[in-house]
Amino acid sequence: MADAPQEDAATTSKKAAKKAEAKAKKEALKAQRAAEQLSKQTAALEIDDPAKDRYGLVKPISPAVFSAEAEEVNLRSLGEEHEGKTVILRAWIQNTRTQSAKMAFAELREEGNWTIQAVVMVTPEGTPEAQVVSRPMVKFITAITPESFVAVEAKVKRPLEPVKSCRVSTFELHITRCFTIAPAPPMLGLTLAAANRPITDFNDEDVKAPGESDKEPEAGVPAATMLTHLDNIAMHKRAPVQQAIADIRIEVKDLFRSYLKARGFKEFEPPCLIGAASEGGGNVFRLQYFNQEAFLAQSPQFYKQFEIAGGRKRVFSIAPVFRAENSNTPRHMTEFTGLDLEMEIKNDYSEVLLMLEGVLLHIFRGIKERCAHEIELVRSVYPSEEVLLPEPGKEVRLTFAEAQQLLREEGPEEFRNVRDDEDMSTPQEKALGAVVRAKYNTDFYVIDKFPDTARPFYAKVDPTSKPSADGVRATNAFDFFLRNQEILSGGQRINDPDELAERISAKGINPASPGIKEYIATFRQVGVPPHGGGGIGLDRIVAWFLALPSVHLAAYYPRTPKRLMP
Amino acid sequence: MADAPQEDAATTSKKAAKKAEAKAKKEALKAQRAAEQLSKQTAALEIDDPAKDRYGLVKPISPAVFSAEAEEVNLRSLGEEHEGKTVILRAWIQNTRTQSAKMAFAELREEGNWTIQAVVMVTPEGTPEAQVVSRPMVKFITAITPESFVAVEAKVKRPLEPVKSCRVSTFELHITRCFTIAPAPPMLGLTLAAANRPITDFNDEDVKAPGESDKEPEAGVPAATMLTHLDNIAMHKRAPVQQAIADIRIEVKDLFRSYLKARGFKEFEPPCLIGAASEGGGNVFRLQYFNQEAFLAQSPQFYKQFEIAGGRKRVFSIAPVFRAENSNTPRHMTEFTGLDLEMEIKNDYSEVLLMLEGVLLHIFRGIKERCAHEIELVRSVYPSEEVLLPEPGKEVRLTFAEAQQLLREEGPEEFRNVRDDEDMSTPQEKALGAVVRAKYNTDFYVIDKFPDTARPFYAKVDPTSKPSADGVRATNAFDFFLRNQEILSGGQRINDPDELAERISAKGINPASPGIKEYIATFRQVGVPPHGGGGIGLDRIVAWFLALPSVHLAAYYPRTPKRLMP
Repeated sequence: MADAPQEDAATTSKKAAKKAEAKAKKEALKAQRAAEQLSKQTAALEIDDPAKDRYGLVKPISPAVFSAEAEEVNLRSLGEEHEGKTVILRAWIQNTRTQSAKMAFAELREEGNWTIQAVVMVTPEGTPEAQVVSRPMVKFITAITPESFVAVEAKVKRPLEPVKSCRVSTFELHITRCFTIAPAPPMLGLTLAAANRPITDFNDEDVKAPGESDKEPEAGVPAATMLTHLDNIAMHKRAPVQQAIADIRIEVKDLFRSYLKARGFKEFEPPCLIGAASEGGGNVFRLQYFNQEAFLAQSPQFYKQFEIAGGRKRVFSIAPVFRAENSNTPRHMTEFTGLDLEMEIKNDYSEVLLMLEGVLLHIFRGIKERCAHEIELVRSVYPSEEVLLPEPGKEVRLTFAEAQQLLREEGPEEFRNVRDDEDMSTPQEKALGAVVRAKYNTDFYVIDKFPDTARPFYAKVDPTSKPSADGVRATNAFDFFLRNQEILSGGQRINDPDELAERISAKGINPASPGIKEYIATFRQVGVPPHGGGGIGLDRIVAWFLALPSVHLAAYYPRTPKRLMP
Repeated sequence: MADAPQEDAATTSKKAAKKAEAKAKKEALKAQRAAEQLSKQTAALEIDDPAKDRYGLVKPISPAVFSAEAEEVNLRSLGEEHEGKTVILRAWIQNTRTQSAKMAFAELREEGNWTIQAVVMVTPEGTPEAQVVSRPMVKFITAITPESFVAVEAKVKRPLEPVKSCRVSTFELHITRCFTIAPAPPMLGLTLAAANRPITDFNDEDVKAPGESDKEPEAGVPAATMLTHLDNIAMHKRAPVQQAIADIRIEVKDLFRSYLKARGFKEFEPPCLIGAASEGGGNVFRLQYFNQEAFLAQSPQFYKQFEIAGGRKRVFSIAPVFRAENSNTPRHMTEFTGLDLEMEIKNDYSEVLLMLEGVLLHIFRGIKERCAHEIELVRSVYPSEEVLLPEPGKEVRLTFAEAQQLLREEGPEEFRNVRDDEDMSTPQEKALGAVVRAKYNTDFYVIDKFPDTARPFYAKVDPTSKPSADGVRATNAFDFFLRNQEILSGGQRINDPDELAERISAKGINPASPGIKEYIATFRQVGVPPHGGGGIGLDRIVAWFLALPSVHLAAYYPRTPKRLMP
């Protein structure tokens, strides 16, 4: 098994890894020569082979090559009813192993990391099955390159003992026909085994997988860099760990959507192209748009609010957002998926807080339940501790002032003097997370009532709050944390146009500037009910929940300042 | 009722509309003065009002102002169990009408076009309810500006006869408390009635609503231009017709997603930012991306295929796509939502065709069933004929050659000589649609086996096809049509890297060019099974199904070459 990055070997810094790669390349070349040799032999033998129509390289395949009674199956749904039956399976050859000239094994793999052992045995002469499997056919099968796509016809049998190395352990397939539909190259740029190792280098910062940071890679299976993975995108995605992460990501979205739909939320699609960089900051992508300039949306904030102004009681969106931030860290991407919601407030903004807390706990509990197999698989590559969630009724919600007090009293020495009217720093967040975990036994908690200095102009100031000496006031706005990292920002928004214009001016922004003017005007068009909402980074909650060393692993096609391919 | 566009009156070309607008403005001013007058009177009367705590302008509202036994309700769920009970409803004032100094009516509206009649009557002196409703309270309510957001407490009663003007016709609300939570301005930029009229001008082409094109607008309710609608986005979205279109759009997405999920498809998210304009053409947005150039995705084509290469059997995506096309027509937008799928092919690409046909028919039949009320509402504004769908088992699938023959034999004179090896023009498509409708009684049909000259490089040539004299061959690729317009392109893709490189060269594209090189390389990384798929424009299928005069009406925030706001 070999990991042989084609272009980016230079980026792998560790000498050990290089050595292992060189060795692996050598082995792969050897394997390639052996395969070529076998292939020649096979060709020579095929001529008089009584089984010659039962195997080979075929494109396209015709259903006529299989027995009429053979049923197409998926490994996921293989059951007792198939025992003794003839089935057709389309799958990848994961590996093959020659037992003798008459017998070989292959591991077949399907989507979702379903694997099964296949056996191919020369059928004895003088029996009715004499022409089913020949020696050349066994040789053909063992010579199929790993990650080739094949269609096999086989009898489903029970193995003598359970096959521990395969996910389907109680059945095996006795091959009667085998066709290569799409061959893989003799040498893979990244083997499945290597693709399923922890990534050694994200080419951004020196990141280590938690709990495994100093382990040596297993002999013969060198790990690879993120760049090698991206250069071999098909193998990156075929890795069981990546399939599991993608499956968890799908469930997170489904849990988010179904929870909100059941509570009267309507999905909508905010635009990506916008006419003004109205949420400020330099982190916005600009582009030439016919005779004007356009920007890529940094969040759906304004549009969520327009939906509320436009007569929706509750809306959510699952949509891409963009940040032109030149941050080459495992926490940042330039494009990611936002899970956003916005809702009418009846009496108090705590309705919003509870809704967001509810949906997140529903997601976390839901993936623990639905994705137990996937989580375990991810942990086998990237070890992590179980996420501690609060029991129902014991959710941890601190005000910003309470959190700061906790930090002063129970946090490390350096945070003895943190203030209630200044935003928290990342080190403070981390320290607070540790204190909260020790005190409340949870990795998930809420900090409410952030000071207005730490919040954007649309955040509603708590009308009951008292200003500090410097005039700083608390807002009806909060952050959610998971494993010491912020995963959500939310709160009540200002729905009164005069109050909004005033806050915008107070923040030093011109209320007449492009985008802002139209934003305020929307609240003058009609009566807009009180409302609030929040935004969650999908990539981040997947990554932090699984304690992945980089958010890039949670994305389908991570976009970083240096990388837009594939 | 008035439509008074603030900035874009100049864009409304018709004199009649201008005249009506001027008249409407005048009326609105009159109404504003009357409202101010009333408001003054109310203020004067309030001082000694025994009911003075039961109404008024409040922000924020406290639950303590309502009776403890009052239950919060939505109009959607109002039922017999509420009769005689006291309820709280938060809704918009749609309009008010004074009957006498002692009695008035109001129409209240909630999301989804749910409306109910509310009655407010001065409670007789000397009864236990004497202080519930006073004359100033009646005046206050009649003076509330339309589209204000209010919270009312009321008794649910049966009206003497059903209220035909409201969606909730079997109940009415007898108001006992009424608070304005968010007031609308005295003069709306676009009234609800005007917002619900057919849009007169899309500022692109002169488009008429089918079937209604030459009707005069009803007296007193002038229609408005699309630009006026967009300048009054909250009122545009509050219009019942727009709420209905948005609700149908949501169902289309849900039907697409649930059908595919039930058939083993996994959702994924293709990127918007890409490193190469690999699908060619000049219609691509470019932007500066740190030290390189980036492009906005024109389709998720390559990424769907990467998912298949990466080990998924079946994938779908619902994602924004971008076209930098300077087309100012009601058929075009620069950003729209693509519904895409891609799947492994077992035996034949007809598996893909049938899957796409199945999901589209499921969508069309599904919205007919689930959205009957909404479709009817849309038709009341934009009249259209029922879409004719084929009965199960009677789907119409023509080859390109058969379609051309049909056009030659049964189409208009001008298409007597159409060829089998050239792409169809839009007039041809329209003419063919009419022939198919007359012959097969359907507005939905498939044309298969397009010539390779009309297809992109990734389309699989039908290996059984015979080349024409000019070497043109049929492909395993098809288009779907609805009401004579193309709504889907799909087919089998090339999965063999050598064949792919050859086709790319044959199309005059350099296989080594950025994006293309990496695309081909992915098929060399592993064995990629045969696969195919298709892409549907969400905005278009909503618009064509409803026969809307412009696709812009189906979008949440239409993006056109001239417009990026709001």
